Amino acid sequence: MGKVIAGITTSVDGYVAGPGDGPGVGLGKGGERLHNWVFGGPWTYDDEPDSEMAPEDAAWMEEAMSGLGAVVAGRWTYEAADHWGGENPWNLPFFIVTHRPEEQPEGGAFNFVGSLEDALAQAKEAAGDKHVHVMGGADLIRQALASGQVDELTIIVAPVILGGGKQLFEGFTEDIELEHKGVRQSQYATFIDYAVK
Amino acid sequence: MGKVIAGITTSVDGYVAGPGDGPGVGLGKGGERLHNWVFGGPWTYDDEPDSEMAPEDAAWMEEAMSGLGAVVAGRWTYEAADHWGGENPWNLPFFIVTHRPEEQPEGGAFNFVGSLEDALAQAKEAAGDKHVHVMGGADLIRQALASGQVDELTIIVAPVILGGGKQLFEGFTEDIELEHKGVRQSQYATFIDYAVK
Repeated sequence: MGKVIAGITTSVDGYVAGPGDGPGVGLGKGGERLHNWVFGGPWTYDDEPDSEMAPEDAAWMEEAMSGLGAVVAGRWTYEAADHWGGENPWNLPFFIVTHRPEEQPEGGAFNFVGSLEDALAQAKEAAGDKHVHVMGGADLIRQALASGQVDELTIIVAPVILGGGKQLFEGFTEDIELEHKGVRQSQYATFIDYAVK
Repeated sequence: MGKVIAGITTSVDGYVAGPGDGPGVGLGKGGERLHNWVFGGPWTYDDEPDSEMAPEDAAWMEEAMSGLGAVVAGRWTYEAADHWGGENPWNLPFFIVTHRPEEQPEGGAFNFVGSLEDALAQAKEAAGDKHVHVMGGADLIRQALASGQVDELTIIVAPVILGGGKQLFEGFTEDIELEHKGVRQSQYATFIDYAVK
């Protein structure tokens, strides 16, 4: 059985998006800097990024991806990403947790599921011996942590203080001990891997 | 002229103390785990820690200390630390920012100063070519960051989610870009050094 690995990029002050994130505005005001590491430098929603992920990050991403068998995201993330243009960006079974599973689009790119519990169960079955990645948003990662089903947590910290937006741990009141699995840093992010005790 | 270096230990969810910190209770409920790295393992306020700082952390601390010429702390930190038993724990000029500088104790261990601006000015003068360390609390570090006077920021992340307490960036609304200076990890903490752009 694979593990459940939650992972998300935050600012130094703990935001996973700047103010006003959502459909058409992605990561909110200033929030695109959180993902500079993804594009290898500053980028905007209007232009194609003119740089590529740094080789060390690309190598990490490739290794991480090779261990994954399924991905779970929240409905807000799906909407804020503008449905990834209707195409599953992961090339893996992709489960979207939503209160309105009946709104699942045709085509089979996304599996809408009515609860985190069901989504994790289905994702684990689809992943087999591989890992399930809980990609966010913040609320879904909080739910997953609170449910005790997260085996590992990866926090990717972008070198920016946003001063506002959506906080990863907003309203989270659980006390959870973690254990270091490792850390690495590239120009645009610090990657910290934890095991949940 | 030395730099102004702010540095503090936080939980993964951004707390510099657990719930109810203050005089007699130090870092609040569960907050003592933030400083496991200082004592090389779990410790309590009631017993002398029976372990020592890990050699790699001790080496880092020694190097960091050798560059420092003065330290600035907030009055709350001074009180929560129970005045460090009346003894300056740094063996360096130590400035305490307080609204009531007239309450400075006799003996010269601590220099009470009425504003952050004055404290930084006096600390810089005392430090000469060496660096000034702003050790906290959270409010003082936020003030220092907002004033534009911080050159470097070190966030020491302890591997625990506290789920409550005092947040480093509580109410902070500035947008500040940082640049990586480096990262390292030991058993009980991840040390991330940033330059403030």
